[in-house]
Amino acid sequence: MCTTMKFNQCVLQESAVKHDENKVWKWHIQDPASQRLTWNKPPKSVLVIKKIRDASLLEPFKELCIFLTEMKNLIVYVEKKVLEDPAISGDENFGAITKKFCTFREDLDDISNRVDFIICLGGDGTLLYASSLFQESVPPVMAFHLGSLGFLTPFKFDTYQSQVTQIIEGNAAIVLRSRLKVRVLKENWDKKARVDEKGIILTNGDIESSRKAVQYQVLNEVVVDRGPSSYLSNVDLFLDGHLITTVQGDGVIVSTPTGSTAYAVAAGASMIHPNVPAIMITPICPHSLSFRPIVVPAGVELKIMLSRGARNTAWVSFDGRKRQEICHGDSITITTSCFPVPSICFRDPVNDWFESLAQCLHWNVRKKQNYLSSEDEEF
Amino acid sequence: MCTTMKFNQCVLQESAVKHDENKVWKWHIQDPASQRLTWNKPPKSVLVIKKIRDASLLEPFKELCIFLTEMKNLIVYVEKKVLEDPAISGDENFGAITKKFCTFREDLDDISNRVDFIICLGGDGTLLYASSLFQESVPPVMAFHLGSLGFLTPFKFDTYQSQVTQIIEGNAAIVLRSRLKVRVLKENWDKKARVDEKGIILTNGDIESSRKAVQYQVLNEVVVDRGPSSYLSNVDLFLDGHLITTVQGDGVIVSTPTGSTAYAVAAGASMIHPNVPAIMITPICPHSLSFRPIVVPAGVELKIMLSRGARNTAWVSFDGRKRQEICHGDSITITTSCFPVPSICFRDPVNDWFESLAQCLHWNVRKKQNYLSSEDEEF
Amino acid sequence: MCTTMKFNQCVLQESAVKHDENKVWKWHIQDPASQRLTWNKPPKSVLVIKKIRDASLLEPFKELCIFLTEMKNLIVYVEKKVLEDPAISGDENFGAITKKFCTFREDLDDISNRVDFIICLGGDGTLLYASSLFQESVPPVMAFHLGSLGFLTPFKFDTYQSQVTQIIEGNAAIVLRSRLKVRVLKENWDKKARVDEKGIILTNGDIESSRKAVQYQVLNEVVVDRGPSSYLSNVDLFLDGHLITTVQGDGVIVSTPTGSTAYAVAAGASMIHPNVPAIMITPICPHSLSFRPIVVPAGVELKIMLSRGARNTAWVSFDGRKRQEICHGDSITITTSCFPVPSICFRDPVNDWFESLAQCLHWNVRKKQNYLSSEDEEF
Amino acid sequence: MCTTMKFNQCVLQESAVKHDENKVWKWHIQDPASQRLTWNKPPKSVLVIKKIRDASLLEPFKELCIFLTEMKNLIVYVEKKVLEDPAISGDENFGAITKKFCTFREDLDDISNRVDFIICLGGDGTLLYASSLFQESVPPVMAFHLGSLGFLTPFKFDTYQSQVTQIIEGNAAIVLRSRLKVRVLKENWDKKARVDEKGIILTNGDIESSRKAVQYQVLNEVVVDRGPSSYLSNVDLFLDGHLITTVQGDGVIVSTPTGSTAYAVAAGASMIHPNVPAIMITPICPHSLSFRPIVVPAGVELKIMLSRGARNTAWVSFDGRKRQEICHGDSITITTSCFPVPSICFRDPVNDWFESLAQCLHWNVRKKQNYLSSEDEEF
Repeated sequence: MCTTMKFNQCVLQESAVKHDENKVWKWHIQDPASQRLTWNKPPKSVLVIKKIRDASLLEPFKELCIFLTEMKNLIVYVEKKVLEDPAISGDENFGAITKKFCTFREDLDDISNRVDFIICLGGDGTLLYASSLFQESVPPVMAFHLGSLGFLTPFKFDTYQSQVTQIIEGNAAIVLRSRLKVRVLKENWDKKARVDEKGIILTNGDIESSRKAVQYQVLNEVVVDRGPSSYLSNVDLFLDGHLITTVQGDGVIVSTPTGSTAYAVAAGASMIHPNVPAIMITPICPHSLSFRPIVVPAGVELKIMLSRGARNTAWVSFDGRKRQEICHGDSITITTSCFPVPSICFRDPVNDWFESLAQCLHWNVRKKQNYLSSEDEEF
Repeated sequence: MCTTMKFNQCVLQESAVKHDENKVWKWHIQDPASQRLTWNKPPKSVLVIKKIRDASLLEPFKELCIFLTEMKNLIVYVEKKVLEDPAISGDENFGAITKKFCTFREDLDDISNRVDFIICLGGDGTLLYASSLFQESVPPVMAFHLGSLGFLTPFKFDTYQSQVTQIIEGNAAIVLRSRLKVRVLKENWDKKARVDEKGIILTNGDIESSRKAVQYQVLNEVVVDRGPSSYLSNVDLFLDGHLITTVQGDGVIVSTPTGSTAYAVAAGASMIHPNVPAIMITPICPHSLSFRPIVVPAGVELKIMLSRGARNTAWVSFDGRKRQEICHGDSITITTSCFPVPSICFRDPVNDWFESLAQCLHWNVRKKQNYLSSEDEEF
Repeated sequence: MCTTMKFNQCVLQESAVKHDENKVWKWHIQDPASQRLTWNKPPKSVLVIKKIRDASLLEPFKELCIFLTEMKNLIVYVEKKVLEDPAISGDENFGAITKKFCTFREDLDDISNRVDFIICLGGDGTLLYASSLFQESVPPVMAFHLGSLGFLTPFKFDTYQSQVTQIIEGNAAIVLRSRLKVRVLKENWDKKARVDEKGIILTNGDIESSRKAVQYQVLNEVVVDRGPSSYLSNVDLFLDGHLITTVQGDGVIVSTPTGSTAYAVAAGASMIHPNVPAIMITPICPHSLSFRPIVVPAGVELKIMLSRGARNTAWVSFDGRKRQEICHGDSITITTSCFPVPSICFRDPVNDWFESLAQCLHWNVRKKQNYLSSEDEEF
Repeated sequence: MCTTMKFNQCVLQESAVKHDENKVWKWHIQDPASQRLTWNKPPKSVLVIKKIRDASLLEPFKELCIFLTEMKNLIVYVEKKVLEDPAISGDENFGAITKKFCTFREDLDDISNRVDFIICLGGDGTLLYASSLFQESVPPVMAFHLGSLGFLTPFKFDTYQSQVTQIIEGNAAIVLRSRLKVRVLKENWDKKARVDEKGIILTNGDIESSRKAVQYQVLNEVVVDRGPSSYLSNVDLFLDGHLITTVQGDGVIVSTPTGSTAYAVAAGASMIHPNVPAIMITPICPHSLSFRPIVVPAGVELKIMLSRGARNTAWVSFDGRKRQEICHGDSITITTSCFPVPSICFRDPVNDWFESLAQCLHWNVRKKQNYLSSEDEEF
């Protein structure tokens, strides 16, 4: 059985779970290499995201935009502030073509249904930023690293023309990177509103107006830490409503498999391939020898709150952004989002990941050596 | 959408992956608490597995068998060698009832389609043994710990009557523990046949008679290590046909999520909930600072072979059993099995697991302490 | 050969390194159990340190002070702010005896040569505070835990009278806890003087007045971290003048063996007995799989500076106190101090330490279990 | 104060611990760079150790021996079996010069007082072997790596003539690598004498003849493990006569600082510079989340025995050699040896060590990356 998922004009084919309706039953385990991107009709619009304040990206950005507009006849979406950069607005040659672009402003203009796919130029941060622009379904993303390879940016820019052409023509491997849906519920919103206006604000009219919730889609991780305090953080961790442990230490990271190779790996986590449907919980410098990271199924609901006796507050951030304070009574609820990021592979989900492990993290790089010697063969 | 899987007379209900066939698509993430066991018609037969050579289990075993036979009218299956234990065969009172039992011999009699469910008495090893008896689909297993709680033995024996009654009446939570299907392909089988006769022997008639394969179903882990040699083992690890790394060290563990809390945790792995569809790869004392454990999707195919330049052989074992030598040219192929072990929960998959983490591994047991002091509040 | 070290009226006996001046040479390795405290003449003065704002300590504190003054005829030194606590100043009965105390103010009054020994009441923080009061040689310290055992507070208060009497009579085991001498050299002192006035300020008259240095004696650790920044810290680590590595991560901990069981252990360090003459360097969440902690000889000089390309500043703190910013050009120089803290043992240096490992860190607490089973004995 | 230690004709200068006999006392911490090798009179004899069965070493070995004999007029000691290698004995040109060599047989001929210094050719194993030849004081060792750099073999062979000349002329930096003195006391020696004849056999005539002890000098580590058994090992660890913990797992490593970068590092230990006077205890795959490695002072006495309830025996090896079984009642006693290995540095103890960390273990090799992004500067 093979289900077919449609996204805008693209179709994601996936070999799904299979069940024999017989006396015995079997699993059909999904092959991570089987997810592919194809288009029902050719894509018409592309969002180009560029890391700002990086001079080395200017020429590649201009080249790419000209290629997309003039050679590929695509409608190019660019954020307004990118074009306002003097290095771009001051370039008269390029100025002519920018008039053909569609521009938008973060948090103000909704482009969620107008873009067929996304191209990122820069580091892994560009993909995190792209993710933050789409609170619901995300178009497929093709990400170029300009410097060295990143986990989220598998494509080299050198041969961008043939690469982009191939994607537009369809049939590329894709990895669906799960995101976390995070809901921060704050008591007394008005008094300590340190949150900016980015997220989707949900007002529960039934209760008093002082409780409000903000929601985020997170691609790497939610971090709860002690912030500028020199006290340990003390937070309670709930799973499906049950208190499972109290985190005493510098903090805790709740990450996607994609995020397992970001901050979590620095805190000691194992690395999880992005195709594994799971959530990883990793303590940061826990004051316990036995607080090993754990991996739980994607379907659970996590909740984090300050412990009753906590002497100071904690701080939370989302993919390194939107840092805010968490006080007694506030809660952070985390589930796997229904809206993953479809990330276009350079080769395929398996090879891309191991290539990144080797190049980004030098995983198992070693010198061959024999430290144990048998009596007669060695010395 | 909710698929229904039948197993003998039982039905496993599982809320499955859901896809909207609309323009946008969503994931329906499976809730681990949703898998439940129900019976289409009442179970008629039960296999009772008892750890042998443990005198403390004799009375519970007898009590349980009498209860199952006389109170519940179940056909009890017991291994022949269990009844041949003098402490059992010498008990005349019990002797009468054993005549009603069905007996079988390991490796000789096939009971795979005759047993409706299994009851284990003893440690986690009894469940590993139960798993090894069923190379294909496994009946639901209810496992009692007589001493202290184990990851695989959640039930206390004290209240066995009500617990067993409840299972027979149906509607219990269940966790499907994935197994690994391991195929060992050996060159020159005849010359170095150190393998015993337990596994399913597959003969490939097309090639020369000296290549034979043996297959195992593994619940915890496959371990490849240096055996009695004092040299490092040197094995190559392939994933979907690509060489991903070479393991140089004491060995490597390929485990299920169930096995992540067994040998793998001792070797430094993170703990993975049994509901996560994944395979864990953990090096044993690797001679590399950067060889962190990794978690890959359940759908991949792994292969392990001696590295070309390896100076000595390696040894492989399956759930701690069937230890055998691996020579140049031999290969071990590992995939997720289609036949998981349906393990009946005491409470539910989430609570049972965290209870085991706390009691078996003392996970995050700690003393509350403040090691960082702010200037004015502490000294 | 046995050297004898005098401290005020106390003598520290230590079996020292021994050398045969013969053709061959040998080490005489020091036995950690051999350091003992004896008095040349009975001690006359004692400094009592109490954790402030902890109501549970009030009665023990009063009791102890009365005992020391009236029963033992000791001159009791107490910090002025302790007596100003209303819970103490308001107690008329106790008021009479406080008139006999010598009081002092932190940073203003020098008591370094007036105190024969120190008694601490409270957590490990009281000993860190006591250490900070003595920038040069430190009197022997006897530390009581009121709640649960701490690494630095081995004595129970229940039997304080006999315990204190025994110390005054002499002949107690002692552990010399090494400290780190840390010198912070800041460029442009005037502009960014975020340092408070506590430390010893060294002005180098030869160079421009804008470079000043502050010096600290540290018992646990120096921590350099990214502070409130969400960027990684990037600091260079020099050893005896050579750049040995660059730390990229949340920060780095330079600790004494005493500090190895404090913040360093949370960051993944091995635990080092306080008698080992060494300095431990532990990264905090390093963005490198291979950045294992290292242990270097006590005799080296370490220096930490911001890396040239670091995009933001770092922050440094000393035993969790005196937190300050480190900018480009500033340097932190760390050597083993000549002035250790002589810490009086409850039993002896070895037993006290292992008792603390067990009680404070639950070191190697485990459930007995057999995860590997041989074929014939187990299942 | 600077003590002077003599070894044969060499003098090891070391700045020693200094004590002020005043009222206050200070530590003079030893600078690891201060240990140096000088000769009282020029060395006359040299032992050359070559890894056997390595064809690539033949020419360097011959070249070196000719150089030492003919250019430097040194008496060259070579092991008899090295010269019996057909590749050497068959070389007529070289045959003439071998007649000038002094030969000896391992375990039969005592050369302990006849050699002024040692030159090793090959891997780290050659130095372990050299160490095993000298049960008491060890001459200074100069070790060449022919392939890649090792922790114990700092010299490159390319410029051996100038390097050797410089050592003979004196004044080289030296690191005194501590060794462990290990004494294995076996009950019922005669019945299970699996030990070979290499060690020094000590017979205690006072007790019954069935208890005998063998003693070893170990440069890297003593390993106690479960050997070919698939059960966990269960051994008790005593320190100065007190039971400090029970090791349940694959085994335990007791290592010198030199050995901390060998097997111990693979088992998760921190790396300790060889100048730190300490002993490291590292569990191998312990079945406990909280069994972190520990570092104890060089002056303690450790003892390892099977736990009372251990179901099977353990195995012990010494620098990877002399593997033997340990049964109930046997004991392994470990102290720091009085006879370290004086290892000649290529540059100095600090630089050589960090060079090895980088080249042999890729310590803190990483890619610069920013995983945390602030809101306005990054995406």
